Amino acid sequence: MAATKKQIHLSAFLNGVGHHVAAWRHPNVDPSGAIRFDAYRRVVALAEAAKFDAVFFADNLALPLAPPEQLSKGAVANFFEPSSLLFALAPLTTHIGLIATVSSTYMPPFHTARKFASLDHISGGRAGWNLVTSATDAEARNFGLKDQIGHQERYARAAEYVAVVKGLWKSWDKDPYLFDKESGRYFDPDKLHILDHEGTYYSVRGPLSLPPSPQGHPVIVQAGSSDDGQALAAQTAEMVFTAQPDLAAATAFATGLRARLAAFGRSADGIRIMPGLQPFVGETRAEAQAKFDTLQALIDPAVGLGLLYAMTGIRLSPDKLDEPVETLALNEGMQSRIALFSELGRGLTLRQLLLKVAGARGHWTVIGTPQEIADQIEAWIDAGAADGFNIMAPILPGGLEDFTRLVVPELIRRGRFRTGYETSTLRQHLGLSSEQ
Amino acid sequence: MAATKKQIHLSAFLNGVGHHVAAWRHPNVDPSGAIRFDAYRRVVALAEAAKFDAVFFADNLALPLAPPEQLSKGAVANFFEPSSLLFALAPLTTHIGLIATVSSTYMPPFHTARKFASLDHISGGRAGWNLVTSATDAEARNFGLKDQIGHQERYARAAEYVAVVKGLWKSWDKDPYLFDKESGRYFDPDKLHILDHEGTYYSVRGPLSLPPSPQGHPVIVQAGSSDDGQALAAQTAEMVFTAQPDLAAATAFATGLRARLAAFGRSADGIRIMPGLQPFVGETRAEAQAKFDTLQALIDPAVGLGLLYAMTGIRLSPDKLDEPVETLALNEGMQSRIALFSELGRGLTLRQLLLKVAGARGHWTVIGTPQEIADQIEAWIDAGAADGFNIMAPILPGGLEDFTRLVVPELIRRGRFRTGYETSTLRQHLGLSSEQ
Repeated sequence: MAATKKQIHLSAFLNGVGHHVAAWRHPNVDPSGAIRFDAYRRVVALAEAAKFDAVFFADNLALPLAPPEQLSKGAVANFFEPSSLLFALAPLTTHIGLIATVSSTYMPPFHTARKFASLDHISGGRAGWNLVTSATDAEARNFGLKDQIGHQERYARAAEYVAVVKGLWKSWDKDPYLFDKESGRYFDPDKLHILDHEGTYYSVRGPLSLPPSPQGHPVIVQAGSSDDGQALAAQTAEMVFTAQPDLAAATAFATGLRARLAAFGRSADGIRIMPGLQPFVGETRAEAQAKFDTLQALIDPAVGLGLLYAMTGIRLSPDKLDEPVETLALNEGMQSRIALFSELGRGLTLRQLLLKVAGARGHWTVIGTPQEIADQIEAWIDAGAADGFNIMAPILPGGLEDFTRLVVPELIRRGRFRTGYETSTLRQHLGLSSEQ
Repeated sequence: MAATKKQIHLSAFLNGVGHHVAAWRHPNVDPSGAIRFDAYRRVVALAEAAKFDAVFFADNLALPLAPPEQLSKGAVANFFEPSSLLFALAPLTTHIGLIATVSSTYMPPFHTARKFASLDHISGGRAGWNLVTSATDAEARNFGLKDQIGHQERYARAAEYVAVVKGLWKSWDKDPYLFDKESGRYFDPDKLHILDHEGTYYSVRGPLSLPPSPQGHPVIVQAGSSDDGQALAAQTAEMVFTAQPDLAAATAFATGLRARLAAFGRSADGIRIMPGLQPFVGETRAEAQAKFDTLQALIDPAVGLGLLYAMTGIRLSPDKLDEPVETLALNEGMQSRIALFSELGRGLTLRQLLLKVAGARGHWTVIGTPQEIADQIEAWIDAGAADGFNIMAPILPGGLEDFTRLVVPELIRRGRFRTGYETSTLRQHLGLSSEQ
């Protein structure tokens, strides 16, 4: 019976004119879409028409530390502040969840709590905050630091940061207002709670100047997959976004993460695991492969090296391109991504590794017909490797159009995905119980 | 000839359900409007239909430091993060300027530069940033400090902060993109500028990840009227929002501020001075007076004392209400407001002073027919005391409806105000030359 099949959650991860590093060079792509609001509006409408759970925006607080000449070959310098962008999208949409990244390392927690509470009010309960800790020195240098804070300390800070944000979201009990014009009493003083947080890294009195938002608190998403990242996710996240290259790795990740939840008194079902998925969809296998090959042929090796540096902090010169990949040294950057690339690079030259990872930045890439892609999605879901996917269209809007026009109907036919919104908040769409 | 008359600029300063401290108790007011987005949407539409230059939102990063019982008598805990709110309003409007307050003391300058550049892109050149430095210990305690930073240091920081923000807005020359799909060149590297700011208070490398916004840089508004505030405004502001109780004070302020501009190589016409104006409009003088009296009768003396504390940092007990106002001691709070209240309180009891200032928080209050109000507005404009006004409707939406329905047509009849938007950016509406 179709109704008993596990339902799939879908989020549209939107990134400029597409996730593939060469997207902007594709003949069907208008590169200016990355800085035109009407282009974002269009793809978000596409995702909402397909009844996706959410749209998802990453963030980066700096251009890579590279000379302008080198940067000029990649699609950089082209995006709006994503959490603010969600406010512009809120009144133009009605049901779809709105998730944006704010780095806990460079934003005072009071601002983050207030921003997402405001968004949750204005959107009627559709706000999600994707917590990252940022992983580059380039970002640190835009915020008064010479180098970034170490990995472990960033995560220790982040754990306290989440406690502060959640504490601020509880500043007020439900329905605090009396609005008693006669007596002059505006709110019930018993419903106000001063946080008075004094911790290792943060000291925040509170309260917020906002009543509880429709979701109680906005959905917390976490995007770190390192050991520290998983520990934080197990403690605080309701959705996890992760880069997993294949079913075996994804299963191990999901099993490991779910096992950690009990230690925090949480049900193994209290979290939605959403790996990235970059789809190349064709009516035939050959057509899908051709779409992939077209983009791969447009990758400039220099851009691949720049991307490697941006993602790992490791800078290699072009004359190393045809040497075999050695295990890459760990640094204080994004540890989970470094480990992933070391694994993927076994037996390959650096050039081959870059071609392999540049397109989807290490995320799962699936090339095939709608049926083949649906088969693989179902396999991941049924193996417990994922609760859904963060769909990373290689080009926009074309790649998302392909997915919603071809793959989503196939998932619906298989009884795996909704045909209409039956709920109104992001947490409800995700099938999570209220307030964690 | 009407065409030769000096044109008046109008901004709608929106604050919950109205600026009068007792607005929420008014029989025609729905207090819940302060936290309903549709209510904001409605009043902004009203201001745009009347062809106002801009809407303006203040901010406050904390509830006053008072016991919940005492706070519960005032309209608090009821507003969205204002700069984010502007993003939600941007796609719902087409011409009106969008000005919000961000305190330079508690937000890293990189975030502020990026946010307003994003808003300027998304709104098509209608963004304005109102710089304040914040003036209460309550706010400091939400951001890791025990007490606020001293007045002078706050302004020294602010001056450097503006330099950083403006520097970041110049990260890219106009039209930096090449989008050359053939060669793989995305932008012209000669058009990228690394700020590399290393100052006393801030160290920010840059660049922003955004091309130049439609206005070059968003309009900078400044709301401090102390000596330090005026010095900063003379150096950096294109619009000044100020509290002036009468024509003589306003004329002295405007003359003094304009005289400071030359020291920074700026034309005396390079700044728009916009005092606050709280209008009570009636078809007859008696009707207008009755509107004022209705609200004044709803002021709770305890709320007046709380407001005095919130605005000046001075806490007085209710048993002092019938004593004469002594000159109030200066502290590190909002100095210009303390001086203003000392002046207004001469010869009054504390109760009388509170009734006088609670309604409009020290701003100019005008009570009369549309003709009488237009007469006074013209008198201020022609005396050089103001370039326009930040209209502070005592109740919303009613007070703004009164002003746009009765006073604006009178200003149009007198050849003082536009009947339609002839320009598209905020800076153009204000008649300011491009990029300062």
